[in-house]
Amino acid sequence: MMKKKKVNAAILIIGNEILSGRTQDKNIAFISNWLNLNCGISVLEVRIIPDVEKIIIKNIRVLSKEFNYVFTTGGIGPTHDDITAQSIARAFRIKYGYHKQAYKILERYYGKDKFNDGRKKMAKMPVSAKLIHNPSSAAPGFVTKNVLSLPGVPSILNSMIENSKKYLVKGQKTHSKTVNLFTVESNISKQLGSIQKKYKNIVEIGSYPFFRLGKIGVSIVVRSTSKKKLSQVRKDLMNVIKSKKIKILKI
Amino acid sequence: MMKKKKVNAAILIIGNEILSGRTQDKNIAFISNWLNLNCGISVLEVRIIPDVEKIIIKNIRVLSKEFNYVFTTGGIGPTHDDITAQSIARAFRIKYGYHKQAYKILERYYGKDKFNDGRKKMAKMPVSAKLIHNPSSAAPGFVTKNVLSLPGVPSILNSMIENSKKYLVKGQKTHSKTVNLFTVESNISKQLGSIQKKYKNIVEIGSYPFFRLGKIGVSIVVRSTSKKKLSQVRKDLMNVIKSKKIKILKI
Repeated sequence: MMKKKKVNAAILIIGNEILSGRTQDKNIAFISNWLNLNCGISVLEVRIIPDVEKIIIKNIRVLSKEFNYVFTTGGIGPTHDDITAQSIARAFRIKYGYHKQAYKILERYYGKDKFNDGRKKMAKMPVSAKLIHNPSSAAPGFVTKNVLSLPGVPSILNSMIENSKKYLVKGQKTHSKTVNLFTVESNISKQLGSIQKKYKNIVEIGSYPFFRLGKIGVSIVVRSTSKKKLSQVRKDLMNVIKSKKIKILKI
Repeated sequence: MMKKKKVNAAILIIGNEILSGRTQDKNIAFISNWLNLNCGISVLEVRIIPDVEKIIIKNIRVLSKEFNYVFTTGGIGPTHDDITAQSIARAFRIKYGYHKQAYKILERYYGKDKFNDGRKKMAKMPVSAKLIHNPSSAAPGFVTKNVLSLPGVPSILNSMIENSKKYLVKGQKTHSKTVNLFTVESNISKQLGSIQKKYKNIVEIGSYPFFRLGKIGVSIVVRSTSKKKLSQVRKDLMNVIKSKKIKILKI
């Protein structure tokens, strides 16, 4: 069996409303979890930028070179501040205009008499793009080279992300195990560091404080593409927990 | 009276747990809102990156050159994956070691006998940094050149952000007005575009679909440093709403 490669991605959130703090982003965690679970793709960088053409162009060029895939969210609706499609066309110097297939989909959805200029704008994109079908509101997402463009509204994005799967090469899934401990980080930091050193570059150990039922605790999250190494780390971790008599929180 | 300048900032979220989708970020919206309301500072870019030293160094160098301030969150605790302080010291080629004042604060907080190596690590940072007092768990944040480093745990970050104010030059506050309409974007996209054109570079008009009580709507958000221009745009907007007989949602 051929061993799967590591495949990575970046997410580019395009939207003043997220930058200003008006809107709480929900797409980053959703896309990242979905990509890892369904495609074995790890998100290695996220950027949030304003609706400004030259900034979008610059970031598309940088991220599409550096990562296997780039997911953009936002800026593909019918209003003046929706400039993702034209910016991506310019970033790659591809013609921007009506996409024949997208035009047909939208015309059928709205009906010829209600297919006004605003709605027609959603059929404008890099003319050679491949479409990501949108089952909730018709306006398709699109794939330009290694850049996949999705809408910003979470419910619509969630409904169509499955349709981006066929454009993605699958990689190694990252597995994870979490142990929640009633202790403080400084009580186990030395031992955690030693375990991390032992499994350097194979397993990634993260330590995150939490507050629950008025008590302080630490979530230890172990992540790896190897389930076997994950179990070994867990065993080492349980030895530390036993020797320190730390209570585990079962959720 | 001297006119205030535009002051901007970037946010650099350091943490595998946000990138992987395990943890939903809450700091971006909080910091961005706080900076605008309290300091008149606009966040113009956000990046989320993993706990990898060379990646942190690269991003600190790029962002600290490009923006007036950089806020980092995460990676300043006692465990092996907390490498923000050492990475920032390297990015600026400043000595990394025990910060005298931070050491004293932490020693007093824990008591000499409970001040173990893990806890001592939180006193290690760029030695010339200025401290951001932490009223909830003692371990201070710090300011290195134009980079302000805060913890990743939202409740702790929220409790100490006021203490970063004294290190910031204040700028022009951005004001905003929102009108929620029971209509679809494509019904008003042409008119919105015209108004945006009329107030180009002075006012920023955003359009965001929403779903409420089973109905589709659009939030029109108008943002500007000039309250006067904001009122003018609102008037233009109300004329469109009246002429199109669109219902306003009052919240």
